Amino acid sequence: MRDKLKAIVEQSGTPAGFAFAMSVQALIVLSLVTFSIETLPNLSPATRRILWWVEAATVGLFTLEFLLRLWVADRPSQYAFSFFGMVDLAAILPFYLASGFDLRAIRSFRLLRLFRLIKLARYSKAVRRFHRALILAREELVLFFCVASILLYLSAVGIYFFENEAQPKAFASVFHSLWWAVCTLTTVGYGDVYPITVGGRIFTFAVLAVGLGVVAVPAGIVASALSAARDTDRKV
Amino acid sequence: MRDKLKAIVEQSGTPAGFAFAMSVQALIVLSLVTFSIETLPNLSPATRRILWWVEAATVGLFTLEFLLRLWVADRPSQYAFSFFGMVDLAAILPFYLASGFDLRAIRSFRLLRLFRLIKLARYSKAVRRFHRALILAREELVLFFCVASILLYLSAVGIYFFENEAQPKAFASVFHSLWWAVCTLTTVGYGDVYPITVGGRIFTFAVLAVGLGVVAVPAGIVASALSAARDTDRKV
Amino acid sequence: MRDKLKAIVEQSGTPAGFAFAMSVQALIVLSLVTFSIETLPNLSPATRRILWWVEAATVGLFTLEFLLRLWVADRPSQYAFSFFGMVDLAAILPFYLASGFDLRAIRSFRLLRLFRLIKLARYSKAVRRFHRALILAREELVLFFCVASILLYLSAVGIYFFENEAQPKAFASVFHSLWWAVCTLTTVGYGDVYPITVGGRIFTFAVLAVGLGVVAVPAGIVASALSAARDTDRKV
Amino acid sequence: MRDKLKAIVEQSGTPAGFAFAMSVQALIVLSLVTFSIETLPNLSPATRRILWWVEAATVGLFTLEFLLRLWVADRPSQYAFSFFGMVDLAAILPFYLASGFDLRAIRSFRLLRLFRLIKLARYSKAVRRFHRALILAREELVLFFCVASILLYLSAVGIYFFENEAQPKAFASVFHSLWWAVCTLTTVGYGDVYPITVGGRIFTFAVLAVGLGVVAVPAGIVASALSAARDTDRKV
Repeated sequence: MRDKLKAIVEQSGTPAGFAFAMSVQALIVLSLVTFSIETLPNLSPATRRILWWVEAATVGLFTLEFLLRLWVADRPSQYAFSFFGMVDLAAILPFYLASGFDLRAIRSFRLLRLFRLIKLARYSKAVRRFHRALILAREELVLFFCVASILLYLSAVGIYFFENEAQPKAFASVFHSLWWAVCTLTTVGYGDVYPITVGGRIFTFAVLAVGLGVVAVPAGIVASALSAARDTDRKV
Repeated sequence: MRDKLKAIVEQSGTPAGFAFAMSVQALIVLSLVTFSIETLPNLSPATRRILWWVEAATVGLFTLEFLLRLWVADRPSQYAFSFFGMVDLAAILPFYLASGFDLRAIRSFRLLRLFRLIKLARYSKAVRRFHRALILAREELVLFFCVASILLYLSAVGIYFFENEAQPKAFASVFHSLWWAVCTLTTVGYGDVYPITVGGRIFTFAVLAVGLGVVAVPAGIVASALSAARDTDRKV
Repeated sequence: MRDKLKAIVEQSGTPAGFAFAMSVQALIVLSLVTFSIETLPNLSPATRRILWWVEAATVGLFTLEFLLRLWVADRPSQYAFSFFGMVDLAAILPFYLASGFDLRAIRSFRLLRLFRLIKLARYSKAVRRFHRALILAREELVLFFCVASILLYLSAVGIYFFENEAQPKAFASVFHSLWWAVCTLTTVGYGDVYPITVGGRIFTFAVLAVGLGVVAVPAGIVASALSAARDTDRKV
Repeated sequence: MRDKLKAIVEQSGTPAGFAFAMSVQALIVLSLVTFSIETLPNLSPATRRILWWVEAATVGLFTLEFLLRLWVADRPSQYAFSFFGMVDLAAILPFYLASGFDLRAIRSFRLLRLFRLIKLARYSKAVRRFHRALILAREELVLFFCVASILLYLSAVGIYFFENEAQPKAFASVFHSLWWAVCTLTTVGYGDVYPITVGGRIFTFAVLAVGLGVVAVPAGIVASALSAARDTDRKV
């Protein structure tokens, strides 16, 4: 019987295993929705009570699943200290320890359990291909990350000298200016901080002319490395 | 005579068929323009009356076209329940049923009729190529969509814990924070919600450093899959 | 002597021809800077007078150049009615006709004269390569442009129904909503109009999930077509 | 002994050389952090004194390093006038000359010293590949840069004529409009300036339809040139 359960719990290839994996995933999504609803302000006490019961039931089922996995594992200790084992434990522990208020954040880590999905066969191939693409483009990505960091810092220092006098609050220090640099170079542009001096605006233009490339090129590198990895796949 | 009409209505390769298809397309665009104008506030009753007559005439012609298509179809029932048949019906029905106020939205579905354009030969090839590219890159796209969803949720939870206290209204719950996450990770950045705490800003930077790639890479994947599909086309 | 001048005016390969072409380009940039300065508010009459004299001198030199080109052309009428001939004429005519106020806009068309630069040999090759890339990807680009237009319109209709009641001014009609759709799908996000209802925000998310790809993929298509065109160049 | 020191200072391949290079890098980062903290407003005099001592110690170590490099160089004058030699000097000189207030900006140039990192073997290869990619795509990049500049200017002139009357302050001149053009075509969209007239909004749409490509394509060109350069690397 242990072998039968083991097959169901650890292999998602069989119909029973697939059904088990999917039920667990559904439970995770349910527990995340519950968690999100709990953050809503002005909930009635009745709703709070219902949410608590859903949470308790979810944790109960998660605990059962955790014990099941421990039981069917070839070496329970290895499972318990594996990445997924610790994530599984982190998903239930806060409830038992909880006085409840500060540990709520940890509950959102249950999301990590969704990554078990990746073990499903087909996407496992796509993940491995993606992994190979990252290795292929590793050096370029590190290089661009370094250049982007240096550019961010230089932009922040530059805009600080242009705007500090005109807007002593928004650009109070290099650290404040870094926030502007992040918003601008990623082209998010919330509009809470922006240059108003002529010098600052010309500097922004210069930074963007260089910076757009530095920020946008890595995505293109990953995409073309992915298509190279797919080509290799097909040839083998 | 039925065969002659059938050739005109169903094949856009002949001059007469092309003219017919183009007239229908023009009529659809006209009816969409009429619909858009009707949403303008403060229209004079005279304008409203003209718009109603244009609408009535359009629907009349659409009804004629629908009956014509029914008549020339080899199996009328098959046409009536096909995707395009139902879109064609949805384009005229609201007018006949209408007390007119809530069904207006359905009229915009006439837009879907524009997709008949795609049947025109040349673009049919481009559509098929695009379809092949999507199949080629399907697994990667699903993977990135999942990762993007998880990232969106994690970002929303994270920013909620950083900003909830400082801005209890803008970041009132995880659901409110999700709106921020959507605006930020797509780099739209309306500026209606943005972090103001130091922690929230550093978190935003970290999320963007990872998230920009997750959002931008899929477009690159589609583009390179399209160029791979074009290569295959030329070799065959 | 006419042959000598012809070589200088029409061929930028020789040192004298290159110098002539560059002087004209410099003159164009000067006249554009003058034009831009004239739009500044609160100019002193003295500055205005100087600007008028610079403008008069520029137009004088442009007129000389135009007459020179007419004279050396094999068939003057052909030059006069060519694209560049008409641009050259449009650059000087407003000054002679002018009562000056409404024709100012035409002066900015002098910018088009800068495109002569493209005739310089090396970039001519890059332009031809770009042209070939556009032909290669023409069908996909037209397809994406059509889909983007339809998506823009559908987004505008959708957000109109979600937001019209809550923000009757910002989303007053489908035309007003189109402005929102343009700002959002291009990820510019000025922040002058944005959804505030829950439905509108979920709709925005759905539109962006699809729309980001539709807007970003064409750039990737052009880039990969360009690299394909470069490959062909090297093989030949 | 001089030869031994020379190996440590100039070659980062040996363990001792690597340790030396890393210590210098750490010192640079420390001095940049100090510099950034100094820009914070409302620092207590005690903090200011600590920061001054950290700065003095850093400059002392930098001076030692500079003298060391001068001593071990085969030709000291060649090092002193090389790019990195002058950057190294610029990193320490302001402190000795300083009455301190206006020279602060130069301190941020110490960041340039971080580029020594690039000499580390592996990334040196990635930099050379990136260099080759830039050469490969040089002509296209120059072409797009020119077209982008012309488009920026034309957009600014266009929006000036549409919006100047309605918003005489935000669009006061072509130069003011250029700021709008930069913010819009890079899709940053701060929201401090945006069109409000119907004509201006339609013009914005037209500009974006063309401009998004002009701005986004170069990143794709660089990415595909990089993957072409990587292919060449592997074949050789």
